[in-house]
Amino acid sequence: MNCALITVGDEILIGQVTDTNSVWISKRLSASGIRVGEMVTVSDDASRIRATLDRLMGNYELIIMTGGLGPTKDDITKQTLADYFGSRLITHPEALDRITHFFRVRGRNMLESNIRQADVPEGCEVLMNNQGTAPGMWFEKDGTILVSLPGVPYEMKGLMEDHVLPRLRKIVQKPLVMHKTIMTQGVPESYLAVLLKSWESGLPGCVKVAYLPSPGIVRLRLTLQDHCAEEAEQILKVEIDKLLDIIPEHIFGFDEISLEEALGALLREKQLTLATAESCTGGNIARLITSVPGSSDYFTGSVVAYHDRIKADNLQVDETLISRFGAVSREVVEQMASGVMEIFHTRTAIATSGIAGPSGGTGEKPVGTTWIAVAAGERVYSRKFLFGGSRNRIITQASCSAMQLLRRLVLDMI
Amino acid sequence: MNCALITVGDEILIGQVTDTNSVWISKRLSASGIRVGEMVTVSDDASRIRATLDRLMGNYELIIMTGGLGPTKDDITKQTLADYFGSRLITHPEALDRITHFFRVRGRNMLESNIRQADVPEGCEVLMNNQGTAPGMWFEKDGTILVSLPGVPYEMKGLMEDHVLPRLRKIVQKPLVMHKTIMTQGVPESYLAVLLKSWESGLPGCVKVAYLPSPGIVRLRLTLQDHCAEEAEQILKVEIDKLLDIIPEHIFGFDEISLEEALGALLREKQLTLATAESCTGGNIARLITSVPGSSDYFTGSVVAYHDRIKADNLQVDETLISRFGAVSREVVEQMASGVMEIFHTRTAIATSGIAGPSGGTGEKPVGTTWIAVAAGERVYSRKFLFGGSRNRIITQASCSAMQLLRRLVLDMI
Repeated sequence: MNCALITVGDEILIGQVTDTNSVWISKRLSASGIRVGEMVTVSDDASRIRATLDRLMGNYELIIMTGGLGPTKDDITKQTLADYFGSRLITHPEALDRITHFFRVRGRNMLESNIRQADVPEGCEVLMNNQGTAPGMWFEKDGTILVSLPGVPYEMKGLMEDHVLPRLRKIVQKPLVMHKTIMTQGVPESYLAVLLKSWESGLPGCVKVAYLPSPGIVRLRLTLQDHCAEEAEQILKVEIDKLLDIIPEHIFGFDEISLEEALGALLREKQLTLATAESCTGGNIARLITSVPGSSDYFTGSVVAYHDRIKADNLQVDETLISRFGAVSREVVEQMASGVMEIFHTRTAIATSGIAGPSGGTGEKPVGTTWIAVAAGERVYSRKFLFGGSRNRIITQASCSAMQLLRRLVLDMI
Repeated sequence: MNCALITVGDEILIGQVTDTNSVWISKRLSASGIRVGEMVTVSDDASRIRATLDRLMGNYELIIMTGGLGPTKDDITKQTLADYFGSRLITHPEALDRITHFFRVRGRNMLESNIRQADVPEGCEVLMNNQGTAPGMWFEKDGTILVSLPGVPYEMKGLMEDHVLPRLRKIVQKPLVMHKTIMTQGVPESYLAVLLKSWESGLPGCVKVAYLPSPGIVRLRLTLQDHCAEEAEQILKVEIDKLLDIIPEHIFGFDEISLEEALGALLREKQLTLATAESCTGGNIARLITSVPGSSDYFTGSVVAYHDRIKADNLQVDETLISRFGAVSREVVEQMASGVMEIFHTRTAIATSGIAGPSGGTGEKPVGTTWIAVAAGERVYSRKFLFGGSRNRIITQASCSAMQLLRRLVLDMI
């Protein structure tokens, strides 16, 4: 099945917003065996939308269109589609019920513009939006399926997962392509490639490998084609077992699990509790840990000790250590970890202290210098890192390294 | 000047890589008064590239094409352009000199494929690449300028800044399009549209308005065409002044400033310090505040009190209030704010307590219920919110609302 994507929105054409919807949609379609042949972004302008539809309808089996379904005047996709299909807008009762309910539970009044979000072109199939108020629409004409979705990413994703992808999977007979992603932390891409060189050269020809780096984490994606599911799983299992032998300390999970989810699952399994004492990461580790539903079962809290006074007053760090070794030191970060563990009565802790930049670096401690301590019961492990890149990259890398160090300490892999 | 962008690359169509080049190019063109009317991504396939050129050449004054200029077999843009313009590839001596130099200084051997990177279609103007080996190309035909650039972002950016943008600025006489973005917090898109209805209907015809919602924040973009810069600025200033009269409490800044930057600038200006006491936001507010370079000047730290015990032990919250009113209550969140202000010796504070979900909601306090307190000196203001959406959305909305409430309290706008 051949597909074209249409994004509607001036905000993308003027460079105000990066179109992240297209890459998300393409990835899912690709995994379902649907090939995206073209992506096009056009203005919120009826004549441009029509011209694009004229060109693509009939030439692609599937068109997915996002954007322009909001409640304000600049949103013209729905009326344009009604005109294009020679139809008119009618109020869809179930969509209106949903919208009414959406506002009732939030205790907010409905406006005329909200009610009009239940209007859809007569004759289309309506896809219920479980995340917001603008329903999706499914049209079929001239051998082309045209799907129109809101541009708000989480609403688009919800509609794709709830309706569009399941329907498409029934239509497309999927050729078997199996992916397995191995999540690694602690080794940059190029070093990982060196560590895995002989493993890679011994791979069967049918297995392709790709390195997908992001700050602090490298994903290793294995792809296998043209095998039956059982065979494919067996082949991938053999390779993953080899990886677990070569780099056990760097693998924290599979298939897009996050480090905070992996750490949370481990703490839950071992019935351990966690507190963090954060200086340079500024609350980012606590934020990541608590982004996982149910994290209150193992996470008690954090002290973000941005000022040195807080480290002394609220984390029991000896002030003479701060003046002697500096706040970015093994001595201070270890006391921060044991301090927060004692104050918050937890069995594990993470502490960070570093120079996130862009200023504040010295010759001895340049920007990126970060001390991380992790503690579990009586054991404390600390290590100095030198992270590169922007302030945000340094914070992200420090957060990932800290969570992985605690995993390794709990697993006796340090 | 009207422009179309063509991105060539299968890696984008299968969703492996997000196209960040287009947004970067559009932003710069827009700032130079050039309007991007369409963006299209096509496969590394000669017939698809030709069909796209056939459609766009002559209809746009400018086409910028990126991708497909690398040294490997799947890079076919150059040959396709030579065929399209009825020309042939010739070796460009200066480009070859540059490539030879590039390899010599790196002490690497040149491959045949590297030498072929100096080949360009006869008759085009060659743009020297100071960042890499693939030169850019400038063609003119049928009233259209066609520029072809490598897809590697830093090489593309270098060629745009060194050659393409300076040339275009000479061709374009005056900026035809001016944008101004007003950043708002606290009113959903559809409500904002109602508040601004009469303002919108009184807008001069040359000013277009667009609402760009994201969790917690709505950006209002004004666009003005066909005026000289001075006139345009004057017209936009009048409209912005009106907005500042209608929704002063919801505007926190202009042109993509973040809420954490706006709050930080205000605290710095007023020489105030800040601490946060976070329950449901789990450190996210501290993380946002400290993502701003120099935030240590006004931010001292945070207590993430995820467990109620921490609220009592470490934030001086009266335990009888927790058992009587629950942790998600005005009484508790106000004590959290004054507690952290006292413990951390700051002049302002933010506190949050809510149910981020997906579980934990009750009939009386459903998921999304969030109490926020802000304090500045003796004044404490607190308010209950009911946020919708996923766990992450609830946390994001609570964080934005909390920072904006503190801004308003400091500015005496509450």
